[in-house]
Amino acid sequence: MLYLGIDCGGSNIAAAIVDESMNIVGRGKVKFAPGRSAECFCDDIAAAARMAADDAGVQLSDCAYCGLGCPGVVNSGSGMLEYSANLGIENLSLGAEMERRLGLSIYIANDANCAALGEVKAGAAKGADSALVVTLGTGIGGGIVIGGRIYAGVNGIAGEIGHMVIFPGGEECSCGRRGCWEAYASATALKRQTRRAMEAAPDSLMWKYAPSLDKVSGKTPFVAQRAGDATAALVVDSYINYLALGLVNVINILQPEVVCIGGGVSNEGDPLLLPLRERVESMRFVRGNLRHPRIELATLWGDAGLIGAAMLDA
Amino acid sequence: MLYLGIDCGGSNIAAAIVDESMNIVGRGKVKFAPGRSAECFCDDIAAAARMAADDAGVQLSDCAYCGLGCPGVVNSGSGMLEYSANLGIENLSLGAEMERRLGLSIYIANDANCAALGEVKAGAAKGADSALVVTLGTGIGGGIVIGGRIYAGVNGIAGEIGHMVIFPGGEECSCGRRGCWEAYASATALKRQTRRAMEAAPDSLMWKYAPSLDKVSGKTPFVAQRAGDATAALVVDSYINYLALGLVNVINILQPEVVCIGGGVSNEGDPLLLPLRERVESMRFVRGNLRHPRIELATLWGDAGLIGAAMLDA
Repeated sequence: MLYLGIDCGGSNIAAAIVDESMNIVGRGKVKFAPGRSAECFCDDIAAAARMAADDAGVQLSDCAYCGLGCPGVVNSGSGMLEYSANLGIENLSLGAEMERRLGLSIYIANDANCAALGEVKAGAAKGADSALVVTLGTGIGGGIVIGGRIYAGVNGIAGEIGHMVIFPGGEECSCGRRGCWEAYASATALKRQTRRAMEAAPDSLMWKYAPSLDKVSGKTPFVAQRAGDATAALVVDSYINYLALGLVNVINILQPEVVCIGGGVSNEGDPLLLPLRERVESMRFVRGNLRHPRIELATLWGDAGLIGAAMLDA
Repeated sequence: MLYLGIDCGGSNIAAAIVDESMNIVGRGKVKFAPGRSAECFCDDIAAAARMAADDAGVQLSDCAYCGLGCPGVVNSGSGMLEYSANLGIENLSLGAEMERRLGLSIYIANDANCAALGEVKAGAAKGADSALVVTLGTGIGGGIVIGGRIYAGVNGIAGEIGHMVIFPGGEECSCGRRGCWEAYASATALKRQTRRAMEAAPDSLMWKYAPSLDKVSGKTPFVAQRAGDATAALVVDSYINYLALGLVNVINILQPEVVCIGGGVSNEGDPLLLPLRERVESMRFVRGNLRHPRIELATLWGDAGLIGAAMLDA
């Protein structure tokens, strides 16, 4: 059996034909510029889907169904894309529109949730009964999978772990509140922390890797730490503390079998993962001698959303 | 069909025969002193069960099964009571022991989780697909129900919402860390906040309702507030802020259909509930015009655990 998975981002619509072993056997991609009409958006999705089918050498009708991941608020029950700031679209009957265009049953879900499902079906959390996927990027995204299915809560937006306040009155967050975890542990926050440390330490090696503050990336402190820079080591240490602090809170609530860390910062690998595991272990709530959630790095990257979408009803 | 539900506390073992309409038709109770042997514990449970059956005028064999709620870490899969500080018991094959004594299939779960299931089956969250039950007592307990069943995570201890740190480095918590929500929003925390306010305000009306600091209860500031005391009003206001702060964090993660507030403090009713709803509404993460979790007071009180236990496999 084949499945069609689609991942709609703010700049690209990606499509994949996925087989029963969760291999991607055909791909399509269409550029999408926010601000285009909902009609165009649906046509572009259909175009990406046909490209993927052509690439795989199959017909769309060979697919069991089409799964669609979109940023924003998605009503999986009604098939409505209720609100997406990234796409500039609201109240679109996406399920019905795409069913008409593709001739397939359509299942839709939030894109971060699809990525979480992808990691459970084929990635770092493969086979887990419960998993939390944490994406460290511009913000902190979260996707929860329970019993092999996405858990999206009563309104489709469960998993907004980034807007858990951990320092009341602290750093400003893009959501309008202060002290959110996202304002301390996203890639954006790491860059801000790095810039502040560089300004206070004109002799830090970080200036070698980022000659001006606008060149700072999430990699900067990690690279400089490996080169022996003490200021960079402090930035990394403090960032991992913030990351662990919020993660322990979510683990205490959900106790998932696997926690997957994805997003740009997770590229750092073991220098991020090993101290993170150690700090979470020292802080999490324990009673007796229990199994504890495994913390792993996400492995599917950009394909997690495609595979998860394709597996929405598998 | 009848069901046998048992709620094992640190001082009492309560049993109930529950009918299909979730009415309790017979009750039994045996005092239990922690420190007694696991053998005694099991015999006492059986005695409470027989009392309940006698009270209902039925045979134990008329029940479909027995559901058991215990404080501590319970492995629902293996039927093991792995660790219970309150009962002073660990590694007890409770399922097997009780099956032998009662001749019924046994299902076991954590007692807070049973109480949450009870509220979903027959209380304030009746019929909800997802619910969070928050118990404001000595600590803050949490129970999560998803899809009509208890969600206990990989190790049986999901829902430890009280040990979410909201003020890093803040008040000491019984768990050994600092700044846990429980240290700000449990009944114990409310009493501490009340005492501190009284010490700083010798003319507060709270001294009328609690003539000495050891007489302070969770009711003290609420009663004095109603009598017009400004210091008490500040204590209540600040307490509800702490409560809302943590609750919003959990709501952003779980977005349950219903949030039930139970435990001693919830006795205060609307003077607690109405401002709490308002503050949660002003702080929670929203996108578009979405359904939001309903916040309600728990309604079943001590019976929630009994009914939830009885419904563990219904």
